[in-house]
Amino acid sequence: MASLLRAAVTWGRFPWRGYCSRGTQGKLSRDFVETLKAIVGSPHVSTAASVLEQHGHDESMHRCQPPDVVVWPQNVEQVSQLAALCYGQNVPIIPFGTGTGLEGGVCAVQGGVCINLTHMDRILELNPEDFSVVVEPGVTRKALNTYVRDSGLWFPVDPGADASLCGMAATGASGTTTVRYGTMRDNVLNLEVVLPGGRLLHTAGQSRHFRKSAAGYNLTGLFVGSEGTLGLITAATLRLHPVPEATVAATCAFPSVQAAVDSTIHILQAAVPVARIEFLDDVMMDACNRYSNLNCSVAPTLFLEFHGSEQALAEQLQRTEEIAQYNGASHFSWAKEAEQRSQLWAARHNAWYAILALRPGCKGYATDVCVPISRLPEILVQTEEDLKASGLTGAIVGHVGDGNFHCLLLVDPEDADEIHRIKVFTHQLGRRALALRGTCTGEHGIGLGKRQLLQEEVGTVGMETMWQLKATLDPRGLMNPGKML
Amino acid sequence: MASLLRAAVTWGRFPWRGYCSRGTQGKLSRDFVETLKAIVGSPHVSTAASVLEQHGHDESMHRCQPPDVVVWPQNVEQVSQLAALCYGQNVPIIPFGTGTGLEGGVCAVQGGVCINLTHMDRILELNPEDFSVVVEPGVTRKALNTYVRDSGLWFPVDPGADASLCGMAATGASGTTTVRYGTMRDNVLNLEVVLPGGRLLHTAGQSRHFRKSAAGYNLTGLFVGSEGTLGLITAATLRLHPVPEATVAATCAFPSVQAAVDSTIHILQAAVPVARIEFLDDVMMDACNRYSNLNCSVAPTLFLEFHGSEQALAEQLQRTEEIAQYNGASHFSWAKEAEQRSQLWAARHNAWYAILALRPGCKGYATDVCVPISRLPEILVQTEEDLKASGLTGAIVGHVGDGNFHCLLLVDPEDADEIHRIKVFTHQLGRRALALRGTCTGEHGIGLGKRQLLQEEVGTVGMETMWQLKATLDPRGLMNPGKML
Repeated sequence: MASLLRAAVTWGRFPWRGYCSRGTQGKLSRDFVETLKAIVGSPHVSTAASVLEQHGHDESMHRCQPPDVVVWPQNVEQVSQLAALCYGQNVPIIPFGTGTGLEGGVCAVQGGVCINLTHMDRILELNPEDFSVVVEPGVTRKALNTYVRDSGLWFPVDPGADASLCGMAATGASGTTTVRYGTMRDNVLNLEVVLPGGRLLHTAGQSRHFRKSAAGYNLTGLFVGSEGTLGLITAATLRLHPVPEATVAATCAFPSVQAAVDSTIHILQAAVPVARIEFLDDVMMDACNRYSNLNCSVAPTLFLEFHGSEQALAEQLQRTEEIAQYNGASHFSWAKEAEQRSQLWAARHNAWYAILALRPGCKGYATDVCVPISRLPEILVQTEEDLKASGLTGAIVGHVGDGNFHCLLLVDPEDADEIHRIKVFTHQLGRRALALRGTCTGEHGIGLGKRQLLQEEVGTVGMETMWQLKATLDPRGLMNPGKML
Repeated sequence: MASLLRAAVTWGRFPWRGYCSRGTQGKLSRDFVETLKAIVGSPHVSTAASVLEQHGHDESMHRCQPPDVVVWPQNVEQVSQLAALCYGQNVPIIPFGTGTGLEGGVCAVQGGVCINLTHMDRILELNPEDFSVVVEPGVTRKALNTYVRDSGLWFPVDPGADASLCGMAATGASGTTTVRYGTMRDNVLNLEVVLPGGRLLHTAGQSRHFRKSAAGYNLTGLFVGSEGTLGLITAATLRLHPVPEATVAATCAFPSVQAAVDSTIHILQAAVPVARIEFLDDVMMDACNRYSNLNCSVAPTLFLEFHGSEQALAEQLQRTEEIAQYNGASHFSWAKEAEQRSQLWAARHNAWYAILALRPGCKGYATDVCVPISRLPEILVQTEEDLKASGLTGAIVGHVGDGNFHCLLLVDPEDADEIHRIKVFTHQLGRRALALRGTCTGEHGIGLGKRQLLQEEVGTVGMETMWQLKATLDPRGLMNPGKML
């Protein structure tokens, strides 16, 4: 079954390249491009090489694979027309948001039409009493939080990048606040989706924004994390949360990785409602000290953030400090002032750049495994050993409250041997996470590079079930082809 | 497309009744029943009329529709063999847990084999450090909480009934604690599912129990709430939570429904992490006073529960009382002692019986709409007016923090006119919820009675997408036929 389905969506079967010109600037017929222009208007279509190049990659080290044309629809009706046109003519469709993905999700591996959704950037509706908001795909996380600031609400899912919220829904994003506020899966209430043939689906019914439902199959859950392979998300209804009354940040250094993870487990068992709890290994701390002018201990460290009332925070801090000290922590320090707190978290958020600064000119690549929390110490220790043995430059940061961590690796794009070693290392790490009952990706998605690992993770029946869903909703295999499956 | 699919799964097409005897005791051939016995052992197969009758209904007022035979598999291999046998011979399959559903989910509308999963009642694995547990389908909510008590953890989803956890997963259950701990959708990490043909699917990969993942389509989310129409859940990996250090319950009476709902919204906006917040209308309070020997005001009332440290609870109580008083509440009273607290919540949990006691001999029926919280006051007030106009006996309880409420109605099963009025009333209420951007079911599911409302809720494309999923995973339409779609 799986092989049949796989065969059905492989490249060879689809004839559209047959009738396309083979010029370097684009492989679609001139008529086709004219039809695109008729739909969205000439200024909103481009086949310029630089534009195509810019849309052929994300922030990962996957090589650029440009689409044949980029279009910027202005509204959902245009997206629907574009999808119908492409699907009718067997042309691949690649949705594009901010291009801040990390798994090659926007690479046009079979060419086709890249639909850049950033011109649709309205916030359609804000319902403060219902803690919900409806956004178009061009609205980013930060833009939303600026917009809702006066309502006393915020959208907490924070993957680091200022990604588009619909892109975050498409990739099932999460990040530093997941331990408290959940992932996109927990915070998307409804999606408007243009299906491959152009029809419009509202996954929880049109204009609905209830908090929970038991009505029919969970279509919202199916589309969150589908990486653009089932349809184009043209609006998302999101769940907002009250802005915390006060916020405190803290750091503490530990004698070992085990002690840091044990503290995390104890904090969670004590039901301290920690808002962020991030692990940084000693290499990472050293790099952060240099890059962000900090003076932290070069040791396994937790960065924490607490949200609540003044009184609740005092208690949370006290309990956390007790737990940390019980586990041998030194240098427990906390910062209540916004400026100090910002400085601390800026260092964490700049971890990526701190690592890049270790070897200027290199590119970064981030692994993304997630394991049961109890298995974190062994996989972290083994990963650090593997890292040393591999001769690669890298450091570890982790959303340790979720069991998810990233190994930030440096790679010289000209060094084929290093690229090879990175592939070996990341694959080995993925396999190790799977052996420890984990997942190959906690939040970045499968994209191009983890399709083999996904098979190992979900097994034959899991893969066949996923292929069945794909073949049902995208029978021609044109929605973001080559990704995930 | 939808009509084609619908046609494909209607009764007429499947020939299995053709080769069955037409006796009153069972409609399947003797050979078929012998094969069932060969799989699970003779003592675990029954065609006794009383057993069939017992398995043909749940706790709702849907009429009993018995299966042709009931089997009790002892392990997953047997479930797999049963599914393969039934599917190969075009025999409908109906999964059965505790039978405590409220929408006729176990009624064998096309006859067939009822698979009672309660003999599979082991807790397969407990991982306290990972806050996870793996249960077989015979394990109920209360049995699990008894088992894990010493670990300092609990499973908080509480629909009232002591339902089986896999049944709760199958129906997407939730309940009084959802406002704080989420629904089953938020608390199921992995499912083992026997697919219609007998193959075994692990929705998040075999033996995996990570906290989050972005690997492939969210199969777990697809099966949670699928009401047995896609497969048989034979094990569930669940998320556990720390037992709260302390618990306090409170009640407060309000001058109006609006004031009670406003208080709820203000409590949520103030980020008070309330663990339960339940609304009871004046009729309900009157019934509870009589049934549970309470002396509460006969007025719109909130029942609240708070979880946390002693210090945190004091603050939460204080804030809640301030908010309630601001909204005109009287009689804010709280109970910290376990006994008092139990008495209070026993009254809430006995609401169903309190209503039944108003007219002995009658059956109960519970509506289940859920709307955006801001729309609660108008729908509650209108529903109370409709209730009076209809001449029906009923009262309202609601999980008001989620916008979900139940109208508990009494019906004389011999009174055809009353049954008709209940149907009209519930359908009208469903329509009203849909008009207010809500859902026809917050937690009971679609089952038999809300299929028309589901269509209105999700629209043509939504229904067609659901039918596509059903036809893909259950092409012969034999898994719990006639339900949901």
